[in-house]
Amino acid sequence: MISMKEIGRICGVAESTVSKALRGHAGIKLATRERIQEVARQYGYQPNAMVECMQTGKSRSIGIACNNFQCQFSGAIMDGIHQALHEYGYDSYVISWDRLVKDGVDLLSRFSRRRVDGLLLLPMGEPPTPSHIAQLHSFHNPVVLIDQVWGSCDFDYVGTDNRAAMAALVGELFERGYRKIGAVLFSRVSSGEERRAGFLDAMFSRSLPVDGRFLCEVTNSRYGNYEQIRNLLKMPDRPEALVCFNDYLANDALNVAYDLGIRVPEELAITGFGNLPLCEKLRPQLTTADQQAETIGRTAARLLLERITGGETGPRREIRLPAQPVLRGSTGSRTVSLLHKPETAGERKNILRASC
Amino acid sequence: MISMKEIGRICGVAESTVSKALRGHAGIKLATRERIQEVARQYGYQPNAMVECMQTGKSRSIGIACNNFQCQFSGAIMDGIHQALHEYGYDSYVISWDRLVKDGVDLLSRFSRRRVDGLLLLPMGEPPTPSHIAQLHSFHNPVVLIDQVWGSCDFDYVGTDNRAAMAALVGELFERGYRKIGAVLFSRVSSGEERRAGFLDAMFSRSLPVDGRFLCEVTNSRYGNYEQIRNLLKMPDRPEALVCFNDYLANDALNVAYDLGIRVPEELAITGFGNLPLCEKLRPQLTTADQQAETIGRTAARLLLERITGGETGPRREIRLPAQPVLRGSTGSRTVSLLHKPETAGERKNILRASC
Repeated sequence: MISMKEIGRICGVAESTVSKALRGHAGIKLATRERIQEVARQYGYQPNAMVECMQTGKSRSIGIACNNFQCQFSGAIMDGIHQALHEYGYDSYVISWDRLVKDGVDLLSRFSRRRVDGLLLLPMGEPPTPSHIAQLHSFHNPVVLIDQVWGSCDFDYVGTDNRAAMAALVGELFERGYRKIGAVLFSRVSSGEERRAGFLDAMFSRSLPVDGRFLCEVTNSRYGNYEQIRNLLKMPDRPEALVCFNDYLANDALNVAYDLGIRVPEELAITGFGNLPLCEKLRPQLTTADQQAETIGRTAARLLLERITGGETGPRREIRLPAQPVLRGSTGSRTVSLLHKPETAGERKNILRASC
Repeated sequence: MISMKEIGRICGVAESTVSKALRGHAGIKLATRERIQEVARQYGYQPNAMVECMQTGKSRSIGIACNNFQCQFSGAIMDGIHQALHEYGYDSYVISWDRLVKDGVDLLSRFSRRRVDGLLLLPMGEPPTPSHIAQLHSFHNPVVLIDQVWGSCDFDYVGTDNRAAMAALVGELFERGYRKIGAVLFSRVSSGEERRAGFLDAMFSRSLPVDGRFLCEVTNSRYGNYEQIRNLLKMPDRPEALVCFNDYLANDALNVAYDLGIRVPEELAITGFGNLPLCEKLRPQLTTADQQAETIGRTAARLLLERITGGETGPRREIRLPAQPVLRGSTGSRTVSLLHKPETAGERKNILRASC
């Protein structure tokens, strides 16, 4: 790309004259200005965003700390964020949070060096340490947390109304006759803690017993949970429905059931959480709660950009989007069979179970 | 974050002295320099990457044009890229190529304004127009294309040896007794054209007939292909094996088979291409070619960074990584049953088919 110096050489004027002409300063003859602008256009000159930044104090860029690029949930959030950035004409720096944390890199310095106007933090695999939180507090521009909140953080937050959404999903199972309900949980992150609370709310408010053996706490929300779920489903008196922290864990549960020869939903109902694209690509398709991840990303980015541009100056915001249940093939109904005469031993067994 | 001006105020020196001290210039008294460095450390001063950029002519950042953040293939490439960026201490600007193309935004200006030192272009949903290619040619820093090449582009390229890999996959099916093989293709992109050629190589070299009715060209590599694949598999004389352009299309084919009651692999073998995480999460698990997407991303980023830092000055590079077949449950064997006496009508049928 052509520089201001080169434009100056072509037009026979000083670099400072080019700079003034391109910024529309007065004191440059009309003919000279037009000639400079024409050459700039012709050679595809682009103003230097860094110079603008130093003049205005704004870089018109934000930093995005992403955990995992291979996760559909994070990916949909990224899509939503980029929709909003595009609306506002902002650019983004992206860093891979978990990798840098693992390598002990000072995260904020990466963003500070770039003078980003604000930060978006996607859900992390590892909750941040007090030292990370202290680092974030020393960053003087706005920060918005997405999907997870952390104790003692007073940053803006955009996520899901996890507690109500999980309770509603369990309510749907109850309406369909399921009583003996287990859960695959990931309570070490705030979203998982809230979903666990929603599960317990729904069970207790309906006086359903919560069997500790049917609660499976996993240590990773996406991988390596097959054996733990298998142990749960191998119990002779296993639950008749299993709600899972997210769609990935529900996918694992579907696979365990398939591999053990347990029919879904006839013998076991399974629900996810998220409504990621994979839900419709599984067989049976997955019942889940629709988190609208793109909307979460777009909302978070807009909130950040409003903070940056001064449109939002109020106190801390906490936006929790609803997540409606989406019913698909991985859950059936244990009451429908009461409407007609049981025809098979399996159906009779189901009705007996449903009435436990 | 503290500025150089503020450090100067605390230390009782001019901003220019702080600047010189922090850059290690001579002519500053040792005690003054140490005091300035101490205050900078204490208040978490970060050098301004933009000032460094204007001094050195390098921004130490690259631009990444990504198509879709929700695709596991692109996600794995992004992970690999960020591994390499981390090694080199570079940062990345990310833009959403397809969205900006759709909105008619001048893509290069986004990156040029940021003075990125080079560009990585991930696979696009829409192949670039001649005008996009002209734009790229007017960008004077290095460009590396990932996964797809475009006619008349002389940029560095890192991708997969698609033709050989697809031929090897078809070879594996042949070894296992499959003869009547169909294909779900996506030939509008270079990687798809190469896989199609590999499929035909393997068929022709073994004198297997290629039935045009069994070739299904899709228009989107991830979504909306269910009906087309269903039409193929509803044919009464459908193929006994189906190779697919990628793992997403193979997932669709698995679903069509499930929904039509066709047993995989007993009645139909299915292969994907990519070896994305979803392959092991499906039932049956998916046979595929292992593209090592993270390695592709890492290799492309390292090549770009070597170009930028001067370590690589040779002519255009074209790196095609091998993709070995990975055999899983979605393909069986039509020859094993020849080794023992057929016991069921299904097995007898298979042997008859295998000998067609």
